[in-house]
Amino acid sequence: METVQKVKDGDVRTASRLIRRLEDGASEARTTMKHIFPMTGNAHVVGITGPPGAGKSTLVDGIVGNFREKGKTVGVLAVDPTSPFTGGAILGDRVRMQRHAEDEGVFVRSLATRCALGGLAKAVGDAIHVLDVMGKDIVIVETVGTGQQEVDIINHSHTVLVVLIPGMGDEIQAIKAGIMEIADIFVINKADRDGSSKLQRELMSLLDMAPPSSFAGGWRPPIIRVENAFAPDPFDKSIAELTEKIEEHYQHLINKGILASRDRRKAHVEINEAIRTIIYEPIVKELIDSGEMEAMVEELLAKNNDPYSLAEKVAQRFLKT
Amino acid sequence: METVQKVKDGDVRTASRLIRRLEDGASEARTTMKHIFPMTGNAHVVGITGPPGAGKSTLVDGIVGNFREKGKTVGVLAVDPTSPFTGGAILGDRVRMQRHAEDEGVFVRSLATRCALGGLAKAVGDAIHVLDVMGKDIVIVETVGTGQQEVDIINHSHTVLVVLIPGMGDEIQAIKAGIMEIADIFVINKADRDGSSKLQRELMSLLDMAPPSSFAGGWRPPIIRVENAFAPDPFDKSIAELTEKIEEHYQHLINKGILASRDRRKAHVEINEAIRTIIYEPIVKELIDSGEMEAMVEELLAKNNDPYSLAEKVAQRFLKT
Repeated sequence: METVQKVKDGDVRTASRLIRRLEDGASEARTTMKHIFPMTGNAHVVGITGPPGAGKSTLVDGIVGNFREKGKTVGVLAVDPTSPFTGGAILGDRVRMQRHAEDEGVFVRSLATRCALGGLAKAVGDAIHVLDVMGKDIVIVETVGTGQQEVDIINHSHTVLVVLIPGMGDEIQAIKAGIMEIADIFVINKADRDGSSKLQRELMSLLDMAPPSSFAGGWRPPIIRVENAFAPDPFDKSIAELTEKIEEHYQHLINKGILASRDRRKAHVEINEAIRTIIYEPIVKELIDSGEMEAMVEELLAKNNDPYSLAEKVAQRFLKT
Repeated sequence: METVQKVKDGDVRTASRLIRRLEDGASEARTTMKHIFPMTGNAHVVGITGPPGAGKSTLVDGIVGNFREKGKTVGVLAVDPTSPFTGGAILGDRVRMQRHAEDEGVFVRSLATRCALGGLAKAVGDAIHVLDVMGKDIVIVETVGTGQQEVDIINHSHTVLVVLIPGMGDEIQAIKAGIMEIADIFVINKADRDGSSKLQRELMSLLDMAPPSSFAGGWRPPIIRVENAFAPDPFDKSIAELTEKIEEHYQHLINKGILASRDRRKAHVEINEAIRTIIYEPIVKELIDSGEMEAMVEELLAKNNDPYSLAEKVAQRFLKT
């Protein structure tokens, strides 16, 4: 296929168009992906997540610059789950990435949920594959995290950075429960601010309390302090330290033979999302297009029926037995 | 049905068990809901969302107290999308609600995503119905918002409060895109902090720029300032003002005949979620239980197949035609 070959040759326009078609849920783009898929698996996928305002975009900008200095090619996917709290933010931040705009070794794309039915994680997974096959050494996936959807997105990564900032108050308490499972590297951003030592101590004791079994292959997530981007010297120094740790973690996954377990996690997410795309979404689309959805809504509003009985009728119509 | 009658009589244990069974995705709980559904529609559902650390729980506590003083019964659903940033937070906050623990007019439940497949919004919708049929005048749904999932949750509400705090920096820019569509009332919490006037001015100009058509029935979202909970006098005063606005908004929906459009929005979400519960989730469960999911993951890891081709095989097996 011509598209596949062009993506393989690193053609930016073809890759951009393919990703856009995937976001739109176009079936011909899925056919292309069937050919893309067997060629994947060369890129190191780095996920970056953290609360809004943690300075993730500036950080990504620094990491991209450092990897480029090392001669590596980089793809960046900025994922923007449409939401009242993040809508538009990331697109605005992308302006900062302009300094890499002229660099052919860097490919930046923003992804947003266009489809009301979700499926964002699937589009992200596919977009990662596209950048991988384009030949990017590093694929960075940046998301403003809090929901399950964002965890699904981050599960496409080999190395996960969790970015925190001082002064989040009790928030450190709030992140305890789930954070251990996903963070490979902690970043304390804006570390020149008051409270950064307190945050670091809290993270340390959090790590101290974690059972050794939670550190895959014996990897205890390091804590990297990154100082203000307006003071370029310490910023560049800590970014260099950070990218080193990112590479070290990837080597760790390979050396300990646990890269496969990350790929397994990715495979689960991909199959679930594909089933959603191929089965659930077309059914809902058919119901909307035929006007049946509206008729069901009317039945519900009139209290002539309930959602489960309506869904069971839909199941009888579409499912075997 | 006995369960239905007990819920109607306000039996807390029966209601709690039913909600737990709904979270677990139990089919007998769905059968119960079919009988519950026709009796719903009496409660005023109030959604409260905002970024982590905005002080939503303290606010909810105050609102509950004020509604109780007015003789209204209240149900609270604290929704905790399992995530690295919120996991455990809300459960911790629930301790503060203890002062209402002895009050029979208040029913508090935390909901979390137990099922890896999602479906949280459906459980929330069902739980709202349960509290409604229990006879609660007000049902408050509190969620830490940022993802699409949280927007789905908040779409179950008649009146939506968006809580913000001063000092969010550029975050006000970040919320522009989607916030207008969901906020009925803005709350500036911790308004005694520096920057609250600036935040208020920014919100005002945001509202000034919005097209009049975005204010349903001519309702321009008011901005309520709530001061520190540690200074009880101004706190109680602003909470009283807030609950008045909440009631005013509900009256507005009724008077302008637009309550139905909110119910329509809810109905759409409920049908989509029910289809997910009845069609998509059982297919995935069947694949997991039979070991086919693992077999597919292996095929994917060996690059013998791609996610879309695998999902198409699943579709051929489960779908008609």
